[in-house]
Amino acid sequence: MKAAVLGATGYAGMVLLRLLGEHPEVKEIIAVSSSQAGQPARDVDPGLSPSVAAKMSSGGKLASVDEAAKAAGARGLDVIFSALPHLKSAEICAPFVGKAVVIDLSADFRLRDTAVFARAYGTPLPRPDLMMKSVYGLAEWHADGIRAADIIAVPGCYPTCTLLPLLPLAKAGLIRGTVIANAISGISGAGRKEKTDLLFVERSENANAYDPGTSHRHAPEISQELTAADGSLSLLFTPHMAPLRRGMVTTTVAELSRTVTTEDIAAAYRASYGGRPFISLVGSRVPQTRDVRGSNRCDIGWRIEGQHLMLFSAIDNLMKGASGQAVQDMNIRFGIDECAGLPTGAEL
Amino acid sequence: MKAAVLGATGYAGMVLLRLLGEHPEVKEIIAVSSSQAGQPARDVDPGLSPSVAAKMSSGGKLASVDEAAKAAGARGLDVIFSALPHLKSAEICAPFVGKAVVIDLSADFRLRDTAVFARAYGTPLPRPDLMMKSVYGLAEWHADGIRAADIIAVPGCYPTCTLLPLLPLAKAGLIRGTVIANAISGISGAGRKEKTDLLFVERSENANAYDPGTSHRHAPEISQELTAADGSLSLLFTPHMAPLRRGMVTTTVAELSRTVTTEDIAAAYRASYGGRPFISLVGSRVPQTRDVRGSNRCDIGWRIEGQHLMLFSAIDNLMKGASGQAVQDMNIRFGIDECAGLPTGAEL
Amino acid sequence: MKAAVLGATGYAGMVLLRLLGEHPEVKEIIAVSSSQAGQPARDVDPGLSPSVAAKMSSGGKLASVDEAAKAAGARGLDVIFSALPHLKSAEICAPFVGKAVVIDLSADFRLRDTAVFARAYGTPLPRPDLMMKSVYGLAEWHADGIRAADIIAVPGCYPTCTLLPLLPLAKAGLIRGTVIANAISGISGAGRKEKTDLLFVERSENANAYDPGTSHRHAPEISQELTAADGSLSLLFTPHMAPLRRGMVTTTVAELSRTVTTEDIAAAYRASYGGRPFISLVGSRVPQTRDVRGSNRCDIGWRIEGQHLMLFSAIDNLMKGASGQAVQDMNIRFGIDECAGLPTGAEL
Amino acid sequence: MKAAVLGATGYAGMVLLRLLGEHPEVKEIIAVSSSQAGQPARDVDPGLSPSVAAKMSSGGKLASVDEAAKAAGARGLDVIFSALPHLKSAEICAPFVGKAVVIDLSADFRLRDTAVFARAYGTPLPRPDLMMKSVYGLAEWHADGIRAADIIAVPGCYPTCTLLPLLPLAKAGLIRGTVIANAISGISGAGRKEKTDLLFVERSENANAYDPGTSHRHAPEISQELTAADGSLSLLFTPHMAPLRRGMVTTTVAELSRTVTTEDIAAAYRASYGGRPFISLVGSRVPQTRDVRGSNRCDIGWRIEGQHLMLFSAIDNLMKGASGQAVQDMNIRFGIDECAGLPTGAEL
Repeated sequence: MKAAVLGATGYAGMVLLRLLGEHPEVKEIIAVSSSQAGQPARDVDPGLSPSVAAKMSSGGKLASVDEAAKAAGARGLDVIFSALPHLKSAEICAPFVGKAVVIDLSADFRLRDTAVFARAYGTPLPRPDLMMKSVYGLAEWHADGIRAADIIAVPGCYPTCTLLPLLPLAKAGLIRGTVIANAISGISGAGRKEKTDLLFVERSENANAYDPGTSHRHAPEISQELTAADGSLSLLFTPHMAPLRRGMVTTTVAELSRTVTTEDIAAAYRASYGGRPFISLVGSRVPQTRDVRGSNRCDIGWRIEGQHLMLFSAIDNLMKGASGQAVQDMNIRFGIDECAGLPTGAEL
Repeated sequence: MKAAVLGATGYAGMVLLRLLGEHPEVKEIIAVSSSQAGQPARDVDPGLSPSVAAKMSSGGKLASVDEAAKAAGARGLDVIFSALPHLKSAEICAPFVGKAVVIDLSADFRLRDTAVFARAYGTPLPRPDLMMKSVYGLAEWHADGIRAADIIAVPGCYPTCTLLPLLPLAKAGLIRGTVIANAISGISGAGRKEKTDLLFVERSENANAYDPGTSHRHAPEISQELTAADGSLSLLFTPHMAPLRRGMVTTTVAELSRTVTTEDIAAAYRASYGGRPFISLVGSRVPQTRDVRGSNRCDIGWRIEGQHLMLFSAIDNLMKGASGQAVQDMNIRFGIDECAGLPTGAEL
Repeated sequence: MKAAVLGATGYAGMVLLRLLGEHPEVKEIIAVSSSQAGQPARDVDPGLSPSVAAKMSSGGKLASVDEAAKAAGARGLDVIFSALPHLKSAEICAPFVGKAVVIDLSADFRLRDTAVFARAYGTPLPRPDLMMKSVYGLAEWHADGIRAADIIAVPGCYPTCTLLPLLPLAKAGLIRGTVIANAISGISGAGRKEKTDLLFVERSENANAYDPGTSHRHAPEISQELTAADGSLSLLFTPHMAPLRRGMVTTTVAELSRTVTTEDIAAAYRASYGGRPFISLVGSRVPQTRDVRGSNRCDIGWRIEGQHLMLFSAIDNLMKGASGQAVQDMNIRFGIDECAGLPTGAEL
Repeated sequence: MKAAVLGATGYAGMVLLRLLGEHPEVKEIIAVSSSQAGQPARDVDPGLSPSVAAKMSSGGKLASVDEAAKAAGARGLDVIFSALPHLKSAEICAPFVGKAVVIDLSADFRLRDTAVFARAYGTPLPRPDLMMKSVYGLAEWHADGIRAADIIAVPGCYPTCTLLPLLPLAKAGLIRGTVIANAISGISGAGRKEKTDLLFVERSENANAYDPGTSHRHAPEISQELTAADGSLSLLFTPHMAPLRRGMVTTTVAELSRTVTTEDIAAAYRASYGGRPFISLVGSRVPQTRDVRGSNRCDIGWRIEGQHLMLFSAIDNLMKGASGQAVQDMNIRFGIDECAGLPTGAEL
C-alpha cells in the first residue's frame, strides 16, 4: 500500500508517520508539508526512525501536495490522511476523493447537520456536496460504513473518549436525561500552534476548564452520535487542560433509567465490545492516562451511585483520539487485520 | 504573638512557616518536627528565608512537641497549628486546648456526625469530647464561630474549592437536586508521603479520577456543609489528579430551581461575598489555577446552560485550601486584619 | 516613588509588577504595554493582585509609552524599567535618560566593546553614545557605580548565575586557565515568545544543550566581567534547557592556581560576600533551584577535586537573574534598604 | 527463546517486559517479582499489552524466583535479565550462571577492580569469583566478548551516554588531560524507590547537580573504560537531575591533543561507528532527549572550540541506558539481528 499524509509536521501528522512507518502493509509514504516541502524529514523531526525515512518515496524528503496529487492521478495512491486544520482540510482533500480513500482528521466531515456545523465553526460546512460519501469513523461503531466509504471522518479526541463508554448504554436504554461529561486533555490536543497560551511556561503548573457546557466545538459532535443512539438524551460537556503532553480521561455522570447492577452494565459493554481489541473493560477500577499512553486503547470503568451511573474512560488523545484511530479506520477500510501496526500496550 | 506549628516539615507545615515568618503580628515561631527536632530548620529546608529562621525561638532549630507544650504551659503560646495526619492530630492537639487556640488542618474536627466520620475514616472520631469546642473554619462562612472557638478545623482543599461557589446559591435556594462536582488537584494535595504512587515518574504525564462519587473522604465533608445550607441537595463529587505541584479547580453542575439570569447569580454572590478580600467573582470567565497560584484567593465564575448552572472555581490547594486559610482563621480569631500576611496576587 | 515598566506583559515585566506592587517605597506604577495599552491589567493577567492594580496611575489599566514619557517630562517619574527585547530597548529608553533612572533588562547596555556586541547580536551597538552613562548592574560588584548611574544594565541570567561564584576567586587569583561552565535554565528564560520551540509539548519531557562554547550571546558578557577580574582567564560556557518554568543552576569547573583548602575558598567568598543579604554560601552542599525559587538569592557551593575546583550556584532566573536584581539595583540607586520588597526565602 | 526478568515491577523491568513482549524471537517470559508473585501482571501494571501477558508462562501472572530457577534447572531458560538493585543482584543471579545467559542491569559485575568497587559501593564486590565469566556489555565496543559471555554487565546510563562519544576519540589519541563531563538525567534513572526526594512535588520545578566530580558511583565505571582506551586521561563527571521522566544528555569538554578539523572528528566516529544501527552522528547539531525518547539510539554531536572539543550525546536512560541495551546485548549474544525488537525512532 501507498499512503500520503497531509500536515505531516503537526503532532497528529508526526504520529501518523511513526505508525505508517512501522505498518506491515504500508510500503511507501508521501509525507506532505506545504511549508517545508523538499526538506529531509529527519532534519525537521530528528526523532523519526531512519526506517520511516526509508519508506518515503522522495528519498526521505517532505513532499508537496502536488506530488501526492500526481501519485493519486496515476492511480498509485491507496489512501491519503489529512491532518490539516478544519475549514482547510476538505478543500484540499476534495480532488483526491474517488482516487484514494480519504481519511480526514479534521472536523470538516464530522457534522451531518449544516446548521450545527455553521454554529460551531462560524462558517458554512465547506463541502456539503461530499458529505454523502463520508462516514463518521468511530471504528467500533461504524465498521460497515467505513468498509465502503470514500471519505472517513476521524472523530475528535473528546468525542472518542466520551462516546465509547456512553454508546452501549444509550443503545441499551440504560441511561436518561442530561449526561454530564467532564474531560481532561493533554496539551497536544490543541495542536502544534504558535500561541502564547500553549507555551510551556503558561501550561506547566496550570489546570483549567474551558469552553464549558455546550460551547466547545466537540460538544455538538458528541451530541450528534449520542442522540442517534437515544434521541431523548442531552449533554453538558466540559473540557479541561492539564499539563501533560498526551492523554485524556473523561468522567461522565448519567442518570440510570432503571435499577441495574454493575454486572448489567458490564453485560451491556460486553454486548457491544466483546472481543474488540482496543476496548479494555476495567470494571470498578478507574483508568489513568498512563495506562494507555502511546497505545490505541480505550480503557473503560464504571460505578453505580444510587440512581446515577459514573463512567471513566482513558485514551491517548493522539492515538485512539486521532492518528491511531485513523490507522484503525484504514485497516478496516482495506480489510487488513484491525490491529496491524497499532500498539495495545502503553509506553512506560 | 507566638505560634507553634506541628508537622512543620510536611507541605502544609512548610507553607505555614513561610506565611508566619512574614506575618506582621507573629514574632516568634516554634516549628515542631518530632522526627527532626534539633536540626537547623534551614538544613532541612534550604528554601526557608533566614528571616523565618530568625523568628524561631530555638535559634532556628526544629523543636519537639515538649517545647511547644512547655511554652503553652507557661501561657506563652497564643496559637498552635497542626499539620499532622488525621487520626493523629486530635490526640496531640488535645493537651493544648484551652491553653492556646488550636488550628487543626487535619480532618479530626471537621465532621460533626460521628457515624459519618467512622465510615469515611474507618475508625471512630478520635476526640468526640472536644467537638463542642470546635468550629468548621471556612472563613467566609463561620467568622462568628471562629472568633470564639478553642479549636478551628480548617476545611479540606476539595471542600473549600467546591463549597465556596455553591453555598451562596444553596442558601438562596437557587439550585436543587444532585450537584455534580468534579475537581482537579495538584499532587501536593496528597501530602509529603513516601508512596510509589506519588513519585515524579508515576505522576508526570498522567491524569486520572479517583475515589469517585461518594467514596472520597472529602465528599461527606462537602455534603455536611451543603445540606446545612439546603437540606434537599445531594452531591456526587469526583476528584482528579493532574501533574502540577499546587493548584485546584472545581467544575460544578447543578440544576436551577427556577429560571434566573447570570445577573441573578452575580447578585447572590455579591450578597454573600461583597467586599470579602479573598473571593474574586469573575463572571463568565473560567478561572485557571495559575490565576491564584501562591495566593489565598478563590476565583469563582459561572454560566447558565438551559436549566443548569455551571460553576468554576480555582484555589491554591496549599493556600486557601490549607495553610492560607489557616492563617486567615487565625487573623479572624485574634481580631487582626483578615488579610495580614496573606497574598491576594498570584506568583508568576 | 513612581516607577514605569516597559514590556509589562512579558515574564520579566510581570514579575516586576508583582515586586513593585509590594514594594514599600513605590507608590505609583505606570505599566506600559504598547500592544495592550488601555486594557485593564487584571484582565490581561488575572493573577495580578488587586493591590498592584490599585497602584497603577491609570486606574488599573495598561498604559502607552507616551503616558510614561509625559510623566517623565513633568519630572514625575523616578525610575523606568525596560523589559523590552534587545535592539529595541535602548532606542525606546533613550528619551528617558536624565529624566528618570533607566534600569534596562535587555542586552543593549551590557557589552562595553562595540565589536563584541556586533558579533554577538549581528548588528551594531544601538546607542554607543549612551554607554558612558551606564553601569553593569551586578549588584554585589558594582554598587558604587549603580549609586551614580543614569542607566543600569541588569545582567543576563546566565552571567549572574555564573559570575557570582567565579568573581571572588578570580579576583583572589585562585583559579587559572579555561573555566568550563555548564548551566541549566528554566524555560521562562527564553521569554514569552510565540515560538514552536517553546511550546509545552516541545519542552516537556525534553532536555538539551544549545549554543555551546562561545556561541551563546551571554558568553561574551560573562567573559567581559571575568577577564576584568583576571585577564588571564578564558571561558567555555554551555547553556541547557530543562522543563521547569523558573530556575537556573550552573556547574563550573576551574583549575586551581595553587593548592588550597575548601576553607581558603570559603574565606575568599566571605571576603567578597560577607553580610550580603542575597548571597548564601552553602559550603560542600550542592544547591538546587527549588532552594531559591521566587527569591532573589544566589546560593553558592564548592568542592575541591585534586587540582580542580567545582562550583555550584542556583538562582531564580526571573528574580536574581532579571527582575529581582533590577529592583535590587533600584534600591541601591535610590539609597533604600537593599532588601526592600525582595524575598530571601523560596516559595514551596 | 524463553527469557526471565528479575525485578519486573521496577522501571527497567517494566521496559524489559515491553521489549521482550514485542521481540520476534522471544516466545515465553517469566516475569519475576518477589513481592508480588502470583498477581496478574496487568493488575499490577495496567499499561502492559495483553499480548505481553499472553507470552507469560504463568498465565499472565508474576512469578517467583523459584519458578525461574525451576525453568533454568530444566534447561528450559535461555536468558535471565536482572533488574534488581546492586549488591543484591549478583547473589540472586549466581545460581543461574552456566544454566542461562545472565544479563545483569545492576552494578555488581561492572567494575573489575575490587578496591574501586568497595570504595564506590561501601562494601566488597559481592561475587568476585564470577567476574571472570562476565563482560562489560557496552554493545558497540565489546561485541566479541558479549558473544561468548556467561554474564553480561549492562553499563549504567551515565557511562553509556558519556563513553559512546568519548571512546572513539580516546582510542584515536585525539584528546588528552582531564575530561569534564556534565550529564542531565530524567528522574526514572533513580529507580522506582519510595523516597521523599523522588516525589513529584520535590522534583517538578527543580533542577540540580549532585554527587559531583568523582563522587557519583558511575564515575569510576566511566573512568575504567576511558582509561582502558587511553591510560593518560582522567575524568571529572557531574550528574544533574531535571524534571523529565526519561532521557539523558551529556555535555563533555576535552582538550584536543593536536589541531584537528571537525571532519577529522567525524572520521574517527565513522571508523568506530560506521554502519552501527543505534549510533546517529549528527555533526554540529546538538541532540535533544526528545530525539531519542523511547528509542535505543545514542545521538552524538561535536564542535571544536579552539584547543577544546565539545561533545554532545543523548540517550533514553531506560533504553540505550538500561533495558534497550540489555536486549541489544541479548541479540548479540544469541546471534540474532542486533536490531530485533528495538526501536530506532523516537516516540512523539
